Amino acid sequence: MKVFIRPKIEEWPLLLQRPENDLSDLFATVQSILFEIKTKGDEAIIKYSKQFDGYGSPVMQVSQSEIDKACMLVSNELKDAILKAKQNIETFHKSQRIKTTVIETQPGVRCWQESVAIEKVGLYIPGGTAPLFSTVLMLAIPAKIAGCKQIILCTPPNNKGEINPAILYAANLIGVDKIYKIGGVQAIGAMTYGTDTVPAVSKIFGPGNKYVTAAKQWVSLKDVAIDMPAGPSEVLVMADESADAAYVAADLLSQAEHGADSQVIFITTSEHLVTEVNNEIDLQLNQLPRKDAAMGALGNSRAILLNSLDEMIELSNSYAPEHLILALNDAEKVAQKITNAGSVFIGHYTPESAGDYASGTNHTLPTHGYAKAYSGVNLDSFIRKITFQHITPEGLKDIGPVIEKMAEAELLEAHKNAVTLRLAKLNQ
Amino acid sequence: MKVFIRPKIEEWPLLLQRPENDLSDLFATVQSILFEIKTKGDEAIIKYSKQFDGYGSPVMQVSQSEIDKACMLVSNELKDAILKAKQNIETFHKSQRIKTTVIETQPGVRCWQESVAIEKVGLYIPGGTAPLFSTVLMLAIPAKIAGCKQIILCTPPNNKGEINPAILYAANLIGVDKIYKIGGVQAIGAMTYGTDTVPAVSKIFGPGNKYVTAAKQWVSLKDVAIDMPAGPSEVLVMADESADAAYVAADLLSQAEHGADSQVIFITTSEHLVTEVNNEIDLQLNQLPRKDAAMGALGNSRAILLNSLDEMIELSNSYAPEHLILALNDAEKVAQKITNAGSVFIGHYTPESAGDYASGTNHTLPTHGYAKAYSGVNLDSFIRKITFQHITPEGLKDIGPVIEKMAEAELLEAHKNAVTLRLAKLNQ
Repeated sequence: MKVFIRPKIEEWPLLLQRPENDLSDLFATVQSILFEIKTKGDEAIIKYSKQFDGYGSPVMQVSQSEIDKACMLVSNELKDAILKAKQNIETFHKSQRIKTTVIETQPGVRCWQESVAIEKVGLYIPGGTAPLFSTVLMLAIPAKIAGCKQIILCTPPNNKGEINPAILYAANLIGVDKIYKIGGVQAIGAMTYGTDTVPAVSKIFGPGNKYVTAAKQWVSLKDVAIDMPAGPSEVLVMADESADAAYVAADLLSQAEHGADSQVIFITTSEHLVTEVNNEIDLQLNQLPRKDAAMGALGNSRAILLNSLDEMIELSNSYAPEHLILALNDAEKVAQKITNAGSVFIGHYTPESAGDYASGTNHTLPTHGYAKAYSGVNLDSFIRKITFQHITPEGLKDIGPVIEKMAEAELLEAHKNAVTLRLAKLNQ
Repeated sequence: MKVFIRPKIEEWPLLLQRPENDLSDLFATVQSILFEIKTKGDEAIIKYSKQFDGYGSPVMQVSQSEIDKACMLVSNELKDAILKAKQNIETFHKSQRIKTTVIETQPGVRCWQESVAIEKVGLYIPGGTAPLFSTVLMLAIPAKIAGCKQIILCTPPNNKGEINPAILYAANLIGVDKIYKIGGVQAIGAMTYGTDTVPAVSKIFGPGNKYVTAAKQWVSLKDVAIDMPAGPSEVLVMADESADAAYVAADLLSQAEHGADSQVIFITTSEHLVTEVNNEIDLQLNQLPRKDAAMGALGNSRAILLNSLDEMIELSNSYAPEHLILALNDAEKVAQKITNAGSVFIGHYTPESAGDYASGTNHTLPTHGYAKAYSGVNLDSFIRKITFQHITPEGLKDIGPVIEKMAEAELLEAHKNAVTLRLAKLNQ
């Protein structure tokens, strides 16, 4: 990690620059695949699955016997761990339910919001080096709690047409309705436009490589909703004298191992911690199987010594990290001053991996500074708040003239007339 | 309106087809303007403002004396109406605040969400034929309630550099921080990238023509959040024998007058109502100043006679209208079966224009079927829910092994190590 000692505030923007996240170069490629899927359906899915995943069969849906077999392959220890995580994730996401409150904004005028589940949702789980069954939990559990009627999941198989057993186990456990062996742009196209095999959904969730991300971006322009724009994963660790260098290094590395495009930022007011953390990183790095990925990420990363706690808070809020770890003496108090972050981990015994897996919070979070405008995935992501209103004749007599006056001033006579006609009859 | 008598369910999709909403043809134009704004700032803003609005001055911010003058030009009656609407909109949106609840998902593991306002938001208010000061209320009021620190507003001036007084009055009343005389793609570019004059924001709200919409779409891919994808405005009116043909016609026309690209759908189980409503439309249409717009919209519109209330509910849910009016005897009960809609107006005395202006609900709503996945603008649109978690040493001892097991199974050793290191020290 490159070290910066007490940089001036004017230098921060440069230090905090993220790698560019422009996928528009991929739009032409992605668009042509999507168009073929829209027009040719399953035929195009099979063609591109063969091309990109080395496996393309007309039988895309995972069968119950495949699921049963997978469930037998998962160890009991892992099953127990998944069940415990499921329980915590359920507890936290169930607590996010909101009761409908009817508001009488003025006599005879009642307004309320109803939380209604999105009927059909699609989850994308990437294949590749890490089998992300935890992401199945993070997406399917709130979908189920929200009450989504159809939850489908797409994930790329290996070239023998197999899917990691833990992914199938988790999906089956939560109650995903249908699982398809489809990956990449094909999966996004199938879930957006629907094919004979795969039903179209209204919203697509989940991480993916840059092609998947570009495809999600493109279809989100008008065809389907997506969870949020995506960029490489990142963490910012804020530490003072009370921090343990080994813990800080481990937390930085647990983010860095995601991939060479990840970014980790370490900020501290403790001069000696900068050295100690760097030493610890060197030590721990050598024992990691994903050392290469982590080293790549460390190349984009920075350790920054700052003058005060206030400076640290200001820098962190201006960076808006996906994950923020507060390795501070007074972490709980500092947490109250955090205004831009995806998820915040408070104190020395709250590693990011707790939230990645099992504490209950969601791990699908806004990267790349998107935390300035987006929330992470939560129960809201799977519902819509539909507004309802009911006005009584007496209520309309009272509010009607207000509406008439405003509609008239906006030169929208028909809007006015819808009230005028009713008032005329009521006043007869 | 074209009439369809008891169409079969298989025919519905064709009947409910909306005009195509593909703006990708405009991306090249929009992108080049956006790029120029990103690189040249104010200079490009002035150039394009001259070109498109016939007015381009280096002084873009509306001055306090212009605001004061505008406030004097608005009639007291209109001011009173706006104040009353403001009060109802405030009441309803304040009721959407959520209290933080700390959840102990298991002993020693506390998780919670904090609602934090988006710091900087930008509102776009179109110019053109209707001065939409009501949209100022609908966007600025929840922004203010949420606690956004900087609320800016862009709206195109006329070719003398003037803005409709009611827009300035409303913006000043609610407490918009800065108002700029900038319209179109220029405004979206300025608020996205920031210029010497206009600060960059994190989220852009508000309606606009197809260039504004295309620009919002483009910048939403990675640079800034937007309220929601936009399409032409629409209403679906569901009516039974109890409905008043004049009211139904007035409600349909109040949507139709928005523009020739609007769509209105009338569904009913009453055969004679079809004829009566069509007759009423002819009668009322002739008295409207915006007759041409309304006639254009009626060209895209349909009256559909259906067999039962259940069929009506099913059709409406599959169309997912922006506005849904339930002109039914048993409207309140039917409302409970609505699963896809932006905003629902219950009963014979609840015209859509009530929600457009003054009842308290928001009028920025998902069009074009987007209600299947999106909510209308509400307090949530101006906040993020940041998750926080705190784990005690005892809590980590308990949950740690679960995290280790899952991380190991996902082949993410560094994630595991962040726990293992801590447990080792705790168990010393």
